[in-house]
Amino acid sequence: MGVFSIRRRVSWGDCDPAGILYTPRVFDYCTEAIERWYAGPMELDWPTMNRRDNMGSPTVHAECDYLVPMAPGLELDVRVLIEKLGTASITFRVEGVADDGTLHFRARYVGCITDFTRNRAVPVPESLRRRIEAYGIVGAP
Amino acid sequence: MGVFSIRRRVSWGDCDPAGILYTPRVFDYCTEAIERWYAGPMELDWPTMNRRDNMGSPTVHAECDYLVPMAPGLELDVRVLIEKLGTASITFRVEGVADDGTLHFRARYVGCITDFTRNRAVPVPESLRRRIEAYGIVGAP
Amino acid sequence: MGVFSIRRRVSWGDCDPAGILYTPRVFDYCTEAIERWYAGPMELDWPTMNRRDNMGSPTVHAECDYLVPMAPGLELDVRVLIEKLGTASITFRVEGVADDGTLHFRARYVGCITDFTRNRAVPVPESLRRRIEAYGIVGAP
Amino acid sequence: MGVFSIRRRVSWGDCDPAGILYTPRVFDYCTEAIERWYAGPMELDWPTMNRRDNMGSPTVHAECDYLVPMAPGLELDVRVLIEKLGTASITFRVEGVADDGTLHFRARYVGCITDFTRNRAVPVPESLRRRIEAYGIVGAP
Repeated sequence: MGVFSIRRRVSWGDCDPAGILYTPRVFDYCTEAIERWYAGPMELDWPTMNRRDNMGSPTVHAECDYLVPMAPGLELDVRVLIEKLGTASITFRVEGVADDGTLHFRARYVGCITDFTRNRAVPVPESLRRRIEAYGIVGAP
Repeated sequence: MGVFSIRRRVSWGDCDPAGILYTPRVFDYCTEAIERWYAGPMELDWPTMNRRDNMGSPTVHAECDYLVPMAPGLELDVRVLIEKLGTASITFRVEGVADDGTLHFRARYVGCITDFTRNRAVPVPESLRRRIEAYGIVGAP
Repeated sequence: MGVFSIRRRVSWGDCDPAGILYTPRVFDYCTEAIERWYAGPMELDWPTMNRRDNMGSPTVHAECDYLVPMAPGLELDVRVLIEKLGTASITFRVEGVADDGTLHFRARYVGCITDFTRNRAVPVPESLRRRIEAYGIVGAP
Repeated sequence: MGVFSIRRRVSWGDCDPAGILYTPRVFDYCTEAIERWYAGPMELDWPTMNRRDNMGSPTVHAECDYLVPMAPGLELDVRVLIEKLGTASITFRVEGVADDGTLHFRARYVGCITDFTRNRAVPVPESLRRRIEAYGIVGAP
């Protein structure tokens, strides 16, 4: 399987009066990329997870290194990689790469599979675990 | 009862590279002011409405006149007035007023009380209707 | 020329705890569609307008009818039509249409070409006017 | 000087269909708290920094630990602490604390004072450095 990515264009409203991407917006890009990765290669979209299974994957940690400033109109591939698959947790690396290859940001998310009925972490379901392993785990940089 | 309002400060990130409030953000201010009006003088917050009553007040129409541009740091009172109370619908006027009295925007929202079980409009509950009448209905301008 | 549209997927985070699109987000979709219409068929992107010409097209009025609720994962074509071309103002109709043809929302924006140096409305530049006329003006519904 | 904080109420629209705060929104809270800390105790607001000095403090790193889920209506004090003052960089700790003392999130931001004319990091201006020292530097946890 190749690396899953979504296409994002930095919008005028994503940027602040300094003319560059407003700090929090990068996390909108990353969270949406992870949402699409679940709905796409994992075949388990969040609405189904939430309503059918009363389960979710809330983020317990998110971080981002802002490497090269982003301006309105910039087109990015937001790529989703898996760094680590734990018992209940999944560690993502999410990268924003322009068409000329420039790496604009590198983020890391840790999500924790949670049973909302009991409000506690539960093991990653087997079917999801198998799909993640098939997708590929790259390890930490 | 006086007019209910919330205080909002135009943030750096609410503004775009032209240095003024990004068009959609005014609707964030207005929707939040209406949310607080429900939780405050109406004593019926949206989480309770949603979970206890499986009911809501989705917006069927929203509009705004942008009168005077807004820049980062501007402090506004966002005031909530009722223009009209229908069988199932409530028409709001929401105004953004600076401390010097400048009216920066004037919005109108129409919300429709909806029973999510049957997915249809239902009459405004009596207790809410009485509170709205006590709050005061100003009519259209 | 055909009707310009952008593709938008309703994200998990665009929706509120009632599970449907949060009222203000529709204006994010519409403003971004108009931004892309300028950068696309009008060949005049907002950063250039702002920096080179010290000019902009701030919204003076925005409104939306919410016709059919939108849930996470819904894919929409957000279509941009011109209803009217005034001396200094442009009236847009923006529609959100699903793949099955359902019209989920219909918005109207009035933008006003503004010279930021003098902070006043100015006539729509000739080159832009010609492009708008070539794009087509549909009139009010 | 006491610890600077802003008051934030988790809005309906800040939460997603799972009924809890959408991951990226915490960074909106934190960035706004830091903005207000500059405009408040530092007496150097971002619009002035940007326009008068052609300078800014873009974030080079942001991270957050999500400790206790946040639901609509929750009131938080978002507190701003300084962990470290470097030559050009400032490391912030930002905490979201409820009225009952629950720590809901803990974030860390690294901002880098940047001269936009030359697009490079520059030393923290002396007047700002003195105010930060007077405000207090708590060190890493």
